[in-house]
Amino acid sequence: MSADLEDDFAFLHQLSRVAAEVVLPRFRTELAVDNKAGSGAYDPVTEADREAELAIRAAVLAAHPGDAFIGEEFGAVGEGAARTWIVDPIDGTRSFVTGIPLWGTLVGRIDRGRPALGLMAQPYIGEDFLGDGNRAELWRNGTGRRLATSRVTAVADARLMSTSPAMFSPEEFARFERVHATARLARYGGDCYAYCMLAAGMVDLVVESSLQPYDIVALIPIVEGAGGAVATWDGGDPQHGGQVIAAATPALLEATMALLAT
Amino acid sequence: MSADLEDDFAFLHQLSRVAAEVVLPRFRTELAVDNKAGSGAYDPVTEADREAELAIRAAVLAAHPGDAFIGEEFGAVGEGAARTWIVDPIDGTRSFVTGIPLWGTLVGRIDRGRPALGLMAQPYIGEDFLGDGNRAELWRNGTGRRLATSRVTAVADARLMSTSPAMFSPEEFARFERVHATARLARYGGDCYAYCMLAAGMVDLVVESSLQPYDIVALIPIVEGAGGAVATWDGGDPQHGGQVIAAATPALLEATMALLAT
Repeated sequence: MSADLEDDFAFLHQLSRVAAEVVLPRFRTELAVDNKAGSGAYDPVTEADREAELAIRAAVLAAHPGDAFIGEEFGAVGEGAARTWIVDPIDGTRSFVTGIPLWGTLVGRIDRGRPALGLMAQPYIGEDFLGDGNRAELWRNGTGRRLATSRVTAVADARLMSTSPAMFSPEEFARFERVHATARLARYGGDCYAYCMLAAGMVDLVVESSLQPYDIVALIPIVEGAGGAVATWDGGDPQHGGQVIAAATPALLEATMALLAT
Repeated sequence: MSADLEDDFAFLHQLSRVAAEVVLPRFRTELAVDNKAGSGAYDPVTEADREAELAIRAAVLAAHPGDAFIGEEFGAVGEGAARTWIVDPIDGTRSFVTGIPLWGTLVGRIDRGRPALGLMAQPYIGEDFLGDGNRAELWRNGTGRRLATSRVTAVADARLMSTSPAMFSPEEFARFERVHATARLARYGGDCYAYCMLAAGMVDLVVESSLQPYDIVALIPIVEGAGGAVATWDGGDPQHGGQVIAAATPALLEATMALLAT
């Protein structure tokens, strides 16, 4: 591992601690939950989300004052830099507000247009998932291990995860159902954790929609670093979110795209 | 807390450790997965499941030789006793095989026909949930805290969880959808963990179907011990499984039954 990568991963661990200090004391307590989507929808945003974003932003800009920073809650600072950090302090707010420890703090870095570094931190379980597109690691209790995706290439052999059927439009759901019906096993309720289990070789396929850039940018270098492949449903660049496939192998990505397009 | 209850809870912690010793080393590794449902279905049963059941059974019958024991894998021993232990070593096998730490070891005890004691242990996270119908506790890192359900009484205010839409028949799903559409928030992918988050006040309502007795007996004393209520969809005794509702309050249970029956 290069000294640069060691520095990058060490900095991600530091950001994980910065976020956990703010977020963990508010997990499984009575929370002040705003409703930023207005009446009719329920989109919990907590104080934890806002304070963690400010804490992460302060740490990033202190260490890398020339970089740009985009957060879910407070928008962008310093656009136009060669490197842009993009952060979702609590990805999986429904998990968070129901006490389920599958939410995560997502920190991604885009270098000259390419997702190049990513962290998914789950501080209640005590896990940091890290990746740079060539290497991915899981750290827990001070011990790290390298991650590798499975070698599954056929949808019929794949363990499929997706956060919720509610994330798809009816037209999308009909297409998703073909993958769902073909897969060996399917499970809802993943959020960012599903992508990390894909990197760990425990899940083979994640198919989602309605993603924001801050939902996916951090996860791309982790999945790719473990040997997986990420793209939009029609094979485009996934960093802008929308309809996303993450697969254990490029062949499985192709097979899933074909099934979604049928 | 009575000395009897202290003894019972201490014994449940012991069983949690006995199971974890067998199960944890096999979590997130390549597993020998049988397919007990035959071709067409995918129902993973691992060596961990079988060995953990034998280890728990040995510990129970050594400490309580006059009791009966029913396991998911190996069936019943000593039927007709006043007390029957009922065990699912890995509830949530789909979570287990996909690396998601929401599976649990379930140990329940039925005293003269009534679920009277329950454990849900999640050893990767390090949590033991315990209950006896009057009291429920969550233990982690050697520290316990008492659990209490929320005071939610209306379905419209409820955070709903359910393991999977696939657990319902089409007729059941149409009824479930009424609850789903009314609830404040809904999330799939809970298994036994959802009932424990209900006991912890983080979830208000769990609606499921196709449960086996060993899926639910251990959870009843935990939910009831935290102040919640458990019944079948038509208000019957939930200990035999099938269609089950767990609710934060008796009023929410009634309201959910009414909506399912509409």
